[in-house]
Parts: sequence; C-alpha cells; structure tokens
Amino acid sequence: MTLSKTISRTPPSEITATHIVTSQLSVQTHGKGFVDLTAEIEKFVREAKAGEGVVTLFIRHTSASLTIQENADPSVLVDLQTALGKLAPENAGWTHDTEGPDDMPGHIKTMLTSVSLQIPVVSGAMVLGTWQAIYLIEHRARAHQRELVAQFVGSIK
Amino acid sequence: MTLSKTISRTPPSEITATHIVTSQLSVQTHGKGFVDLTAEIEKFVREAKAGEGVVTLFIRHTSASLTIQENADPSVLVDLQTALGKLAPENAGWTHDTEGPDDMPGHIKTMLTSVSLQIPVVSGAMVLGTWQAIYLIEHRARAHQRELVAQFVGSIK
Amino acid sequence: MTLSKTISRTPPSEITATHIVTSQLSVQTHGKGFVDLTAEIEKFVREAKAGEGVVTLFIRHTSASLTIQENADPSVLVDLQTALGKLAPENAGWTHDTEGPDDMPGHIKTMLTSVSLQIPVVSGAMVLGTWQAIYLIEHRARAHQRELVAQFVGSIK
Repeated sequence: MTLSKTISRTPPSEITATHIVTSQLSVQTHGKGFVDLTAEIEKFVREAKAGEGVVTLFIRHTSASLTIQENADPSVLVDLQTALGKLAPENAGWTHDTEGPDDMPGHIKTMLTSVSLQIPVVSGAMVLGTWQAIYLIEHRARAHQRELVAQFVGSIK
Repeated sequence: MTLSKTISRTPPSEITATHIVTSQLSVQTHGKGFVDLTAEIEKFVREAKAGEGVVTLFIRHTSASLTIQENADPSVLVDLQTALGKLAPENAGWTHDTEGPDDMPGHIKTMLTSVSLQIPVVSGAMVLGTWQAIYLIEHRARAHQRELVAQFVGSIK
Repeated sequence: MTLSKTISRTPPSEITATHIVTSQLSVQTHGKGFVDLTAEIEKFVREAKAGEGVVTLFIRHTSASLTIQENADPSVLVDLQTALGKLAPENAGWTHDTEGPDDMPGHIKTMLTSVSLQIPVVSGAMVLGTWQAIYLIEHRARAHQRELVAQFVGSIK
C-alpha cells in the first residue's frame, strides 16, 4: 500500500528575524454553508507586510469550523455539505438535543474538519494551490457571528 | 453555496523577538473517553511567560488524538464518542485485527480528528472561545500512558 | 465522560533567536494510496540544521491530503483506505461528477483528513512517536504530481 515514489525537493532557503502579527476577524454567517475567507486573509498578509513565515487561522467556536477546499466549482461545496450531513445526521438519537437538531451534528462536523489551519507564506504570499480556498463552514441552521484569530509568525518585508 | 458575507477585522498588531518554549506532557488515560487538557496547557502558557504567539500541541500516538470541543455539557462528549464509533465501527472486517477489535477503529478515529493543534496566544492567554476546551481522546479500550509535546513560539513577557 | 486523569509535565525549556527555513517538495503518486514522506522531512530538518522549533507541512491540493499514522503494519494503511472509501463512496449521487467518480470522494476525504500538519522539533529531531509516520494520501485513481511546502520555524544549530 506504501507505493514506490519519486520525491524531489528544493534546497532549503533560510531567513532570520521573526515578527508576530495578529488580527481578529468577525464573520457574519447566514445559516449552513461555506464562507470564503481567502481574500480577507490575503489582505491580512499584505497589511502585515509578511515576507516568509506561516499564517495560523483559528476559529473560536465548536459548531463552525475551517477547511481548505476547491474554489472553482460551487457544486463541490454542495456535495461537501451533503457528505457532512450524512456523516453527522440530525435526529439520530443524540443525547445532547436541547439546542436544536442541528446543534450536535454541528459539533461532530467541527470535530471532523478543522479548528485551526496553517498556511506557509513565501515571498509575501500564502502558498495556496491554484484550486485552494480557505473556507469557514457554518454548521448551524441559523445565522451566527463567528470570531476568528489570524496570526502571522515570520519575517517582515 | 458561498453565501454573501460581512467580514470585519481589527488592524494587525505587531511584536518582535521570538522565543521557543517546549514541554513534554504525560497523560494517563482510563480507556475510551475524553481527557480535558485545557487547565494544564493554560498552566504551561503561564509558566512560559508567553506574551503573543502560538501554542502547538502534538500527540505522539496513532490510536489517541486531539480535538477542541465544547466544555459545558458532558452529553456532547458522549455523543461525539458515539459518532466516532459509528464512523469507525469495531468488527467491520478490518484486516488489521491482531491488536484487538478496538485497535483499527482507533487508528481511523485518529485520522479523522487531530494529531496536532495550534492555538494563538494574545496578551498572555490562548484565544480559546468561551465554550472551547482542549481534549485528548483515548480510542483504546484499555488504559494507556500517552505522551504529548506542548510548544510555544512567540514573545515572552 | 471526562475521566479522572493524571497529567505530568516537564519544566518548560526556552530558546531564543528564530529562523525560518522553507523548501518545496514534489511527490509523484501512483493512484490511490499512501506515500511515506517521513525520511524526506527528516532530511529537510537535518539540512535546515534545525535545533528547536516546529515543522509545518502543507499540501497544495484538494484531492490529496496528509496524515500521521502507523508505520509498522501495512494492513493498517489498507484498512484506512477502506474506511475512507466507506465514508466517501463513489457513485453516491454527487452533483460534482464531471471529473470522474473518484474526484468528489477525493475532496471529501481531503476535508476529513489534513491539509497542514505541524510537528515540534526538539534537539534537532521531530518528536514523532515510535509508530508514527507522515503520509501523503493520494485520493485520485490516476497518478498525480503533488506539490507540498515544508517550513521550519525555530532555532538553528
């Protein structure tokens, strides 16, 4: 199952002097779905004058989460939401049901996706692939205001 | 599916001079279940005199993992464990079964949750939300001693 | 569900002066399966002369992902792939199907595993456990060239 492979790698490039730049985000969601945060985090990286280092994105909630996924065809997001709904169905006999049928599935979906993401920054830009976008996933049926922290650790231009 | 949004963000705050503080944790588990690590990591952050930066928490195992989840109602943890048990059932015809029926499901549950977590630190405290706790999840039926590494990268007070 | 626990921890050790070392990896995959990246990342850590800090590994794709899993018995990888196939089956009525039946399941599997991993480095070596290996998981049926970024933030020997 571990297949034969060809791995190549560029020589390591090194930089000294480290800065920490932090910013808090507030995102208004509109019920279940994906909110694209990519442009806002790119703006943060520019404002921080980030050179080389890493961006950490952290969401301060347990029924909304983060993922990096395809940015091109919106039908991918439809199917991702369907898949999460099958993996964590409503009305499946959860014992924690006082906050509504969408609450416990929201916790499970958060556990199966990400609360924090790290994206390296090289030459002043995140190294996201061509088809990658950073999404907040709202798992609750109703609109929520969600708080996040973006933090860059690295060199400044 | 990508909904209209309102994103606001505070101006970036910047700090220089970076320290690295590392500590190893040993956690005694008592079979399947959640162990709350939050108070211990908060203690680490205080002892490290952390100012601004990021805490990385890493677990050195493949059948125990990490998650950030609700700290209030214990029934959430019951349901999370039920959900993991449905996603990775025992006796489902796994080929790797020499270490007991709970072993392969433990590997799958580890893959679906987290081996490492990153939590930004601002003004000397982790930015955990009101309802967030840091948990180790033991996936094996029997008690285990689990080893973790906590590391802070950032400024010191 | 939150069980009684015994947590012990070593005193924090501290180091100053931070470097950032970055390298890009290219990995040739051969269809669905696991590619062990551990030796290559260990080589990167040695070349970087890493002392104490953290390695971030990031994959720039949405249908291939990362995980840290058992390195001993190959049957674990067989079962992990079976499990992912059950959680994200092909031909399950996905709306996004223009790129083949393995494409949408690949996105779901990526969402359920990791796009970025962080591994602390202590005394010049990653703190991986005895049974842990770092894997790239190819979710597509056909061979792909996958791009990753490895980055060390920390002290240099």
